[in-house]
Amino acid sequence: MSQTLTEIFEHYFDFWKELSETEIEFVCANTRKVSYPKGAYVHQGPLDCIGALLIRSGQLRVYTMSEDGREVTLYRLFAGDVGILSASCVLDALTFDVYIDAEEDTEVLLTDAAAFRRLVEGNIHVRCYAYELATQRLSDMLWKMQQVLFLSADRRFAIFLLEESAQNGSGEIHLTHEQIARYMGTAREVVSRMVKYFNQEGWIKNSRGCIKIIDRQALEQLKGK
Amino acid sequence: MSQTLTEIFEHYFDFWKELSETEIEFVCANTRKVSYPKGAYVHQGPLDCIGALLIRSGQLRVYTMSEDGREVTLYRLFAGDVGILSASCVLDALTFDVYIDAEEDTEVLLTDAAAFRRLVEGNIHVRCYAYELATQRLSDMLWKMQQVLFLSADRRFAIFLLEESAQNGSGEIHLTHEQIARYMGTAREVVSRMVKYFNQEGWIKNSRGCIKIIDRQALEQLKGK
Repeated sequence: MSQTLTEIFEHYFDFWKELSETEIEFVCANTRKVSYPKGAYVHQGPLDCIGALLIRSGQLRVYTMSEDGREVTLYRLFAGDVGILSASCVLDALTFDVYIDAEEDTEVLLTDAAAFRRLVEGNIHVRCYAYELATQRLSDMLWKMQQVLFLSADRRFAIFLLEESAQNGSGEIHLTHEQIARYMGTAREVVSRMVKYFNQEGWIKNSRGCIKIIDRQALEQLKGK
Repeated sequence: MSQTLTEIFEHYFDFWKELSETEIEFVCANTRKVSYPKGAYVHQGPLDCIGALLIRSGQLRVYTMSEDGREVTLYRLFAGDVGILSASCVLDALTFDVYIDAEEDTEVLLTDAAAFRRLVEGNIHVRCYAYELATQRLSDMLWKMQQVLFLSADRRFAIFLLEESAQNGSGEIHLTHEQIARYMGTAREVVSRMVKYFNQEGWIKNSRGCIKIIDRQALEQLKGK
């Protein structure tokens, strides 16, 4: 690594300046670089507790799963994001478990669970940071679950297209219907039906593996205020 | 009040001993007793921000609502519980809004939003408490949303009956089908169908406004591990 761990952590964590020399050494000694190849399981619900993740490159997908294996993607983590739910064992208030997969080859800095727990218990600034971040993530997840539960498919699809295009900074979305269905927590058939419908309305143009947004205003209108 | 505010707060809040004399006076000066009659709206999503609630007696119902008015009850608050989501404006990480109604005549101690914000911003122990409680509530809510999203109706109904009977400490549930439907976030017809089905199986005995659990073991089995 060209940067030292301390430089990286200082940049991302407000609580860093509140740590003692001993705590800083302790965190660094218990943090390691981990690489997940595309498709790897990073965290599996109640089964494991890996600690806290700082994503350096790549992409992680956080999702929940029904008993019969239906998935709902809750959010995705990109470079610079911190994954705190992978340390659910550390935060006593967390009773909701998630699954995390690597969507691309991903590099993370992983602070192991036991060390992270000691830090959270020993330093109120770290504890406050962890719970504030957990509140943020859970709040976003609830918003997502509410969408799945309540919104009509066309509105959800419009929101997905707009968010995805904002994310990659272009008017094109290079994803298969299968992938979109997984991200949206719906069936591939529903996505294909939506693509056809949006195509016919002239809002998007669909070609092999790529959806191009044609009428952004129409999508915004569908999305609502 | 027979007890002073300080005695009550000391009992419920771990952070109380971390407050300065000035902060204690400030909280007490900005807390008042409020009564909500049965059926009253206590908090309405993004529309208001009333502050933090400590329930003294009665019952509040916390729920979310779809655009077309469908409700899902997320949890209920009883005497001694603290309602923190009614202060969503105070916790910056909270992006998910809820509705809160009084299910019974309810008495609360309400610390107003501006005062609560000042306390949260000025004292890390209060901030940590608030975010930890928010994490707990959101985590429970996600669990509930997941149930609504994924579980089959019979299993959800068994879980509801067992939880309700554990809550009131008896094998009888005095609620109408309408009320149960609202608590479970389902339709009254679904509840009536379930009641009829569970009745026929001999798991419960249904009479006017009352469901009696007959075969607890069968419900536990349905609930699963």
